[in-house]
Amino acid sequence: MPNAPAPALPARRAVFFVSDSTGVTAETLGSALLVNFPGVEFARRTIPFVDTPEGAENVRREIEQAARSGEEPLLFTTVKDPTVSEVLDRAGSTRIDLLGGHLIELERALGVTASEQQGQYHGVGDVERYFARMRAVEYAIEHDDGQSTRALDLADVVIIAPSRCGKTPTTMYLALQYGLLVANYPLTDDDFPTDGLPRAVAPYAARCFGITTTPLRLSQVRHERRPNSRYASLAQCTLELRRAEELYRRTRVPFVNSSTKSVEEMSAVIMQSLRIRP
Amino acid sequence: MPNAPAPALPARRAVFFVSDSTGVTAETLGSALLVNFPGVEFARRTIPFVDTPEGAENVRREIEQAARSGEEPLLFTTVKDPTVSEVLDRAGSTRIDLLGGHLIELERALGVTASEQQGQYHGVGDVERYFARMRAVEYAIEHDDGQSTRALDLADVVIIAPSRCGKTPTTMYLALQYGLLVANYPLTDDDFPTDGLPRAVAPYAARCFGITTTPLRLSQVRHERRPNSRYASLAQCTLELRRAEELYRRTRVPFVNSSTKSVEEMSAVIMQSLRIRP
Repeated sequence: MPNAPAPALPARRAVFFVSDSTGVTAETLGSALLVNFPGVEFARRTIPFVDTPEGAENVRREIEQAARSGEEPLLFTTVKDPTVSEVLDRAGSTRIDLLGGHLIELERALGVTASEQQGQYHGVGDVERYFARMRAVEYAIEHDDGQSTRALDLADVVIIAPSRCGKTPTTMYLALQYGLLVANYPLTDDDFPTDGLPRAVAPYAARCFGITTTPLRLSQVRHERRPNSRYASLAQCTLELRRAEELYRRTRVPFVNSSTKSVEEMSAVIMQSLRIRP
Repeated sequence: MPNAPAPALPARRAVFFVSDSTGVTAETLGSALLVNFPGVEFARRTIPFVDTPEGAENVRREIEQAARSGEEPLLFTTVKDPTVSEVLDRAGSTRIDLLGGHLIELERALGVTASEQQGQYHGVGDVERYFARMRAVEYAIEHDDGQSTRALDLADVVIIAPSRCGKTPTTMYLALQYGLLVANYPLTDDDFPTDGLPRAVAPYAARCFGITTTPLRLSQVRHERRPNSRYASLAQCTLELRRAEELYRRTRVPFVNSSTKSVEEMSAVIMQSLRIRP
């Protein structure tokens, strides 16, 4: 029946991210793909460490249960062992293999065969790089919100902004994801009378990066912390942001607006702008 | 010449992760694929925000330069606009498209067409979820290393361990990646005489998770902070870890060994063990 109407689509789809390791990769790419289908509702579930046929049997049962409940399942997998994938496929749901096809492309491009080890990427891997990230998180906590100026000369990045613009999460992301040493420093009323950058960070102007946002957004975020305070008032937020942006321009500190950018995007902008290659 | 020897492979390959957004997805999956080729050396470079043919021209020149220097380039791309990909392909290097093929598979599975918007996943996206992550980072900083017991009843997870076992990075990862409220609490000598968990965290035993490591690793990490101290001595580390593991077993707190697991792996284990579904 070539002209039969398309079958009714289920209102909600069960999505399983199944991995033989942490599931971070499956979740990240799977979600990046699903975002292209804003009209469909997805009920997501990440299942890590599925690396034996027995473990896969449990997952298969969950998939089949979702299918029975009418949320036609969709699988994203990063599983290297074919005996595991076979068990999953027995559930009869669509499975998108995020690794397999690309591994074959890569073997061809590199002229070598992929090794047989399983799910290594989010393992401890390169111990030096791993230690660097751990040290970076410590450094970020020690230097959060201008708490310490010790070893500020070691900072790869110094983020400056008025309170509640998003300095801390961006700092943590850069530290944890890339092992960068990142300090952040608040711009308070006391910092604005001067012509230049706050004295503590002025020597590191070339590594400074500013954050701004919209007065409305800042006011909302500040109201969460101190409801109905002068600190959270729209007037105060407008003033502080205007002064901060003037300061960034005057001192040629690049800056980004956190109201339209995620932490990941701001981090990418900062590294690109300061020419940091992770 | 079917029996000619295989051409010599370049010793080092230039790898470009090219994205129309932050590059996080391209980097994550690309690296997960490359880890299967431990015998090849890769010089990696992430280039975010390549979303116009003009931007792609700059990247194409960099790729061609790498090719001339003998490091045969390999591209991983998450770029939706075909006019951008076309420019990249003109460099003549192998390009592995991490999105394209899967999008077609998905369109088929869902019976709808992918929307035309570009690189949204690491955007602000779901504002509520985004705020939740931001609040979680704040909570993590406030509750780092037992600094505060305020609102500890709100914690999704309470990580306990002796000093320097990896509590803080794991806490930050769970907060930033999953928006979970995570407190962490140090096990010091004072905490061991009692029979149960430290008083501050005992009411939340069901949400506690322990970390251990090897005495040697702990001693190395502590020596970095306080060289040649009793605190860093192998004897002290052995003692503290033995006591901690005894405590975990006695109080039935699940625990994980950070010497063999990355932050991502520990986070996945913790969520799975406490049945937290992000």
